[in-house]
Amino acid sequence: MKIKLINPNTTASMTELMGSAARAVAAPGTEIVLATSRSGAVSIEGHYDEALSVLGTVDQLLEGDPADAYVIGCFGDPGLLAAREIAAAPVLGIAEAAMHAATFVSTSFSIVTTLERTRVISEQLVRNYGMERHCRRVRATDVAVLELEKPDSCARAIILGECEEALRDDKSEAIVLGCAGMADLAKALEQHLGVPVIDGVAAAVKFAEALVGMRLRTSKVGDLAYPLPKPYLGKLAGYAPAKLFPTSSPSQPTERLAISG
Amino acid sequence: MKIKLINPNTTASMTELMGSAARAVAAPGTEIVLATSRSGAVSIEGHYDEALSVLGTVDQLLEGDPADAYVIGCFGDPGLLAAREIAAAPVLGIAEAAMHAATFVSTSFSIVTTLERTRVISEQLVRNYGMERHCRRVRATDVAVLELEKPDSCARAIILGECEEALRDDKSEAIVLGCAGMADLAKALEQHLGVPVIDGVAAAVKFAEALVGMRLRTSKVGDLAYPLPKPYLGKLAGYAPAKLFPTSSPSQPTERLAISG
Amino acid sequence: MKIKLINPNTTASMTELMGSAARAVAAPGTEIVLATSRSGAVSIEGHYDEALSVLGTVDQLLEGDPADAYVIGCFGDPGLLAAREIAAAPVLGIAEAAMHAATFVSTSFSIVTTLERTRVISEQLVRNYGMERHCRRVRATDVAVLELEKPDSCARAIILGECEEALRDDKSEAIVLGCAGMADLAKALEQHLGVPVIDGVAAAVKFAEALVGMRLRTSKVGDLAYPLPKPYLGKLAGYAPAKLFPTSSPSQPTERLAISG
Amino acid sequence: MKIKLINPNTTASMTELMGSAARAVAAPGTEIVLATSRSGAVSIEGHYDEALSVLGTVDQLLEGDPADAYVIGCFGDPGLLAAREIAAAPVLGIAEAAMHAATFVSTSFSIVTTLERTRVISEQLVRNYGMERHCRRVRATDVAVLELEKPDSCARAIILGECEEALRDDKSEAIVLGCAGMADLAKALEQHLGVPVIDGVAAAVKFAEALVGMRLRTSKVGDLAYPLPKPYLGKLAGYAPAKLFPTSSPSQPTERLAISG
Amino acid sequence: MKIKLINPNTTASMTELMGSAARAVAAPGTEIVLATSRSGAVSIEGHYDEALSVLGTVDQLLEGDPADAYVIGCFGDPGLLAAREIAAAPVLGIAEAAMHAATFVSTSFSIVTTLERTRVISEQLVRNYGMERHCRRVRATDVAVLELEKPDSCARAIILGECEEALRDDKSEAIVLGCAGMADLAKALEQHLGVPVIDGVAAAVKFAEALVGMRLRTSKVGDLAYPLPKPYLGKLAGYAPAKLFPTSSPSQPTERLAISG
Amino acid sequence: MKIKLINPNTTASMTELMGSAARAVAAPGTEIVLATSRSGAVSIEGHYDEALSVLGTVDQLLEGDPADAYVIGCFGDPGLLAAREIAAAPVLGIAEAAMHAATFVSTSFSIVTTLERTRVISEQLVRNYGMERHCRRVRATDVAVLELEKPDSCARAIILGECEEALRDDKSEAIVLGCAGMADLAKALEQHLGVPVIDGVAAAVKFAEALVGMRLRTSKVGDLAYPLPKPYLGKLAGYAPAKLFPTSSPSQPTERLAISG
Repeated sequence: MKIKLINPNTTASMTELMGSAARAVAAPGTEIVLATSRSGAVSIEGHYDEALSVLGTVDQLLEGDPADAYVIGCFGDPGLLAAREIAAAPVLGIAEAAMHAATFVSTSFSIVTTLERTRVISEQLVRNYGMERHCRRVRATDVAVLELEKPDSCARAIILGECEEALRDDKSEAIVLGCAGMADLAKALEQHLGVPVIDGVAAAVKFAEALVGMRLRTSKVGDLAYPLPKPYLGKLAGYAPAKLFPTSSPSQPTERLAISG
Repeated sequence: MKIKLINPNTTASMTELMGSAARAVAAPGTEIVLATSRSGAVSIEGHYDEALSVLGTVDQLLEGDPADAYVIGCFGDPGLLAAREIAAAPVLGIAEAAMHAATFVSTSFSIVTTLERTRVISEQLVRNYGMERHCRRVRATDVAVLELEKPDSCARAIILGECEEALRDDKSEAIVLGCAGMADLAKALEQHLGVPVIDGVAAAVKFAEALVGMRLRTSKVGDLAYPLPKPYLGKLAGYAPAKLFPTSSPSQPTERLAISG
Repeated sequence: MKIKLINPNTTASMTELMGSAARAVAAPGTEIVLATSRSGAVSIEGHYDEALSVLGTVDQLLEGDPADAYVIGCFGDPGLLAAREIAAAPVLGIAEAAMHAATFVSTSFSIVTTLERTRVISEQLVRNYGMERHCRRVRATDVAVLELEKPDSCARAIILGECEEALRDDKSEAIVLGCAGMADLAKALEQHLGVPVIDGVAAAVKFAEALVGMRLRTSKVGDLAYPLPKPYLGKLAGYAPAKLFPTSSPSQPTERLAISG
Repeated sequence: MKIKLINPNTTASMTELMGSAARAVAAPGTEIVLATSRSGAVSIEGHYDEALSVLGTVDQLLEGDPADAYVIGCFGDPGLLAAREIAAAPVLGIAEAAMHAATFVSTSFSIVTTLERTRVISEQLVRNYGMERHCRRVRATDVAVLELEKPDSCARAIILGECEEALRDDKSEAIVLGCAGMADLAKALEQHLGVPVIDGVAAAVKFAEALVGMRLRTSKVGDLAYPLPKPYLGKLAGYAPAKLFPTSSPSQPTERLAISG
Repeated sequence: MKIKLINPNTTASMTELMGSAARAVAAPGTEIVLATSRSGAVSIEGHYDEALSVLGTVDQLLEGDPADAYVIGCFGDPGLLAAREIAAAPVLGIAEAAMHAATFVSTSFSIVTTLERTRVISEQLVRNYGMERHCRRVRATDVAVLELEKPDSCARAIILGECEEALRDDKSEAIVLGCAGMADLAKALEQHLGVPVIDGVAAAVKFAEALVGMRLRTSKVGDLAYPLPKPYLGKLAGYAPAKLFPTSSPSQPTERLAISG
Repeated sequence: MKIKLINPNTTASMTELMGSAARAVAAPGTEIVLATSRSGAVSIEGHYDEALSVLGTVDQLLEGDPADAYVIGCFGDPGLLAAREIAAAPVLGIAEAAMHAATFVSTSFSIVTTLERTRVISEQLVRNYGMERHCRRVRATDVAVLELEKPDSCARAIILGECEEALRDDKSEAIVLGCAGMADLAKALEQHLGVPVIDGVAAAVKFAEALVGMRLRTSKVGDLAYPLPKPYLGKLAGYAPAKLFPTSSPSQPTERLAISG
């Protein structure tokens, strides 16, 4: 099976880092295809960066051969529902996958993320995914995303310290790493801390394999049905649904059911 | 004061319709500046349409003279937090404004919206805005957005019927109209139904005036601080924050406070 | 338009303070009519003070010429729903207005209020208004309401200190002032703190103007319908609905709809 | 032990009806003292009726010999927290008691109440008391409170019908009667329906006995501490705390703890 | 009336301790029958201990003469719903009873419990019982259950210290003791702390008396209906429902209602 | 890898049915080991059946060679947290797995389950797993668990009909099958309905593979730490932790962290 791992930011070295984490856990028959957005921010650290990242993610999702599943490799899960609309193959976000994984191996976790300004974004995801009972706290370290890549930065020490505080003060029993750029830290932190430390890239790849293995595909009735065919104008004219992917019929989706029922 | 009303879809006639609703309620000193997105879908009916609409909304927000406040004229409030990041002047969504207005004049309301497929989007907004106690139900009519513009369609009759069901079955005490394209229907429906019927365009314009009158501006500490300066690549290179609007300093926002404290 | 600002406590100097805040933001055509309760506590600091304050608020609401909108000037919003029942013109509470305003310019805020014993009242309002996602914490200063009026008290310094803690420890991005008696502090605190500081009196006045401008009136179907006509006995005999305001018909409100439908 | 059962409306025959329900369940050593408000509405069917009923309830609570516990006999629990402030003996509301009792003998219940317009009030209590998981639905019958007293009305048949719908459609496993005036119906309905039917008057009396038996009294630290001593003006001058009941010291309640700690 | 107090752990001295607390509050006509589980853990401090404790609780519930009500004397309320299924007489858990009692005499409480590892169990009960608005925090002391019985341990001092922190830091207004083994501490702590301190054993006994006094029995429609008759195999063959207690008919429970309706 | 699939009821034919569903989706290197409880009910349809099923599940979990992961094959997820305590290898419940899977391929789902009396159990799981935003409704069919096995019963037709109602009336976009005994129906229903239909056995097996692939194991700090060593008495004496599995040290788990920190 082929899983396309899309980095919504435009920093290829971060895609490589994610790719390593993905391949380290992928099953024998799984091919990880890496894709880096060609449009937008070099790192995603706020609502504006996120919103504009969707364009490049859509480009990568539609380009090339179709995959059996897609992973969006940014902890804010930008464009996740839009991506689910335009694909029938499963699409997973790494924040979503990490939090779900955490609930299978602990009853409480803390998220350790990057900049303070992104904390609200994580807190919104916690609520959207129904994780309020499990996530005790989102902890921002004020480490910038790209700082994680610098070999001589103190980013890792800061993250370790924050994880230790999470265990001691939040009484959390697992750690969710709140940035794709931390993917390579998970196992070392786990060793050090003695509790599960979850990297969303690995989690999303394995859950994608699982969904493909169950032959589950995104529902095409209702909220995630293919977009309706309609004109797109201006510099986005090329994104008109009918040009790019199957579209939904504008008729009411429940009608058909009533007929066949 | 100048309020820029941005239509995130590319259908100018709908912008005009919203403009009429806006001007009908604007205070004497308020100038309503209309802006129609030049990029993207002719109507917004799903996550994909929404996600891609943000680009054109950002363009319109940044273009021309700065306004004292901005209104995003689509009931999904697409790009609202991104817009708040890049502006210090207040930015309001019409779904947000309509729901808040409804809570001031009723203890329960129903939303009557367009396509069934957009119902989940409205339900998510209801939760994000803390309206679960007030909003009894989101009702989709399966009327397409652009159908609302056709003089001979039965769209209005369908919407009226749905509103009547909302009062009878949901026991709601007010109606929130779930599409900018219904802005012209509010007062006629109100007359007919005998309960408040709230159009988000009017609500957003009036609340924008209110915030400007209070001299309140979007907080630039934390979640809605200006984006960080950073490179943007590819076809979005022109959207790099430093080229377009003030940016936040990458240093920690709370540091400054600690010093001045 | 005429907005009547009712102080539910019996301290006229506090009404004047609120009046200044109201007039500072009122639109050119808005007349602010001040009214001080003639019955009850000199300051409202608990459930008993609140419950008994409703009588004087009702008196002021019904006395004199009708206004286009009413504001209840106490942060506990005492009697708000009762007031909405007996008026068709919009009625706003200052806690309600302040919190709603805060959500338009920030994604998180803290409330800084007076006595510790009133904290639970604010927390209940936070939940009633659906503000749990936005309000990070209610902070009591244990400053008594009337202390705020004394020029030589250290009340202001304590409030400033508490606001600074809210930004630093709660990571809040805006401050809601939890007492009508703090109305004059908002702009100075905002200057000092660098984040929006919201006074409910100003917010309520501006939102009242907004609702009147939208020609929205309180729903008279269901929960907020005029009270039913019925005898009132004893020292409250004069408060029998039929003597004071229009009343609802005892017949079922939905019947009429069914007929007209 | 002496339990004072206060009817917040001014209809003495309804007090008698409640008294019968109370005495039918009271323990041998329990004396039920009946008190009917002398001020306000003959029946309580809305926010205005409720708000004004607190005065008469306070009068009755303070008048005569102190009781070991108090019950407020109206399903909206009007003035409950104010009453708890001014008494140290336990005070119970009948809605509160009925819902708590229901959770001990079922995992789901429906409330069957009187007028549609009071449904929102019950729904707010459901949330305030944390009963959202247990209460499947509030069902209004549009039977007026005083209609319950008329021997030849069809009120009882309507209520029975609504209870049957609750079992069939809501899949509820118990019924909570949503009006003090239904107290005499509980056991007959229970017989007929085959599920627990809970009258709040009986529940409140028994829980009051239980709390007295545990020697529990209302906390006088924080939210329910005695009101602060302060002037009350005008027609409520006689309600100044210091004249009527012990008052709290204006000093900070936590200070004392710190000293003794 | 006869109330059977079942200790789900196998330590008879703890049953005696609970028995003293129960008898200290029982009404004159109430007989407290003590029962200690004969199977399972000597103390219950986790999910495994809890799950296995249900067997011994069921044994005690079914053994001997039937009681008018049952109390499960462990703060995790293990097997509560299973016990309600197999009995028609009311069954109460001590955590449930303590939390409900606390809401009648305070608006906020903290739970002070034993081992840190049991904190999640208490937090889950808080949510299941709808106590999130009232319970400010669950505080673990890391005192083991059986440590409470040792006269020379510092368990009591630790618990007192934790209670004092709860009042100071959580601003709680009452304390719920989170272990049956603390039943004898309640009144001394209450004296010391000046706020209500609630022991669940006393609360459950008194609420059991109250329910019996109301002649309320567990609903036998739906979730808590008697188990269906069916074979049980292996070492649990003796627990087949038909051998031990009345069973439900496998037909649909609502059918009967429809017929009689 | 070896995944042990434990049927907590004692009906071996149902274990076989689950085994087929498991093997149909298992990855090449995965061995599915089947285990049927030897103690307790032939089908699990209520709290009592559930509570007593834990014993046999524990027996099967501990018996024989350790597996790499465990699946509890009953939609009520009985004993899930107890099982997680006594194993370090991941343990998954099928209700949990099915609901999580559903959120990856839809934004709303309905659960179609067996007897009406088990509906509350499913609703409690929905809340415990944070699925209230995704699960629109739990639908009971009143089909008994063992009825599903009879080839000539109308169970399948009833289930199909209920699924169709779920799509039409709940507007759900996916179906979660609420019983292990429905595992063989999923793909046929999916074909017929045109939306994802999720069987929890398949989902749990694939997620178990995923967790093992990520090398995640259950957190042994806090809530899910191994049980403490302690005596077990009577007929459960053999279940004393120290005899069966590693145990936790009674010392405080956070101490160690503090030292190493």
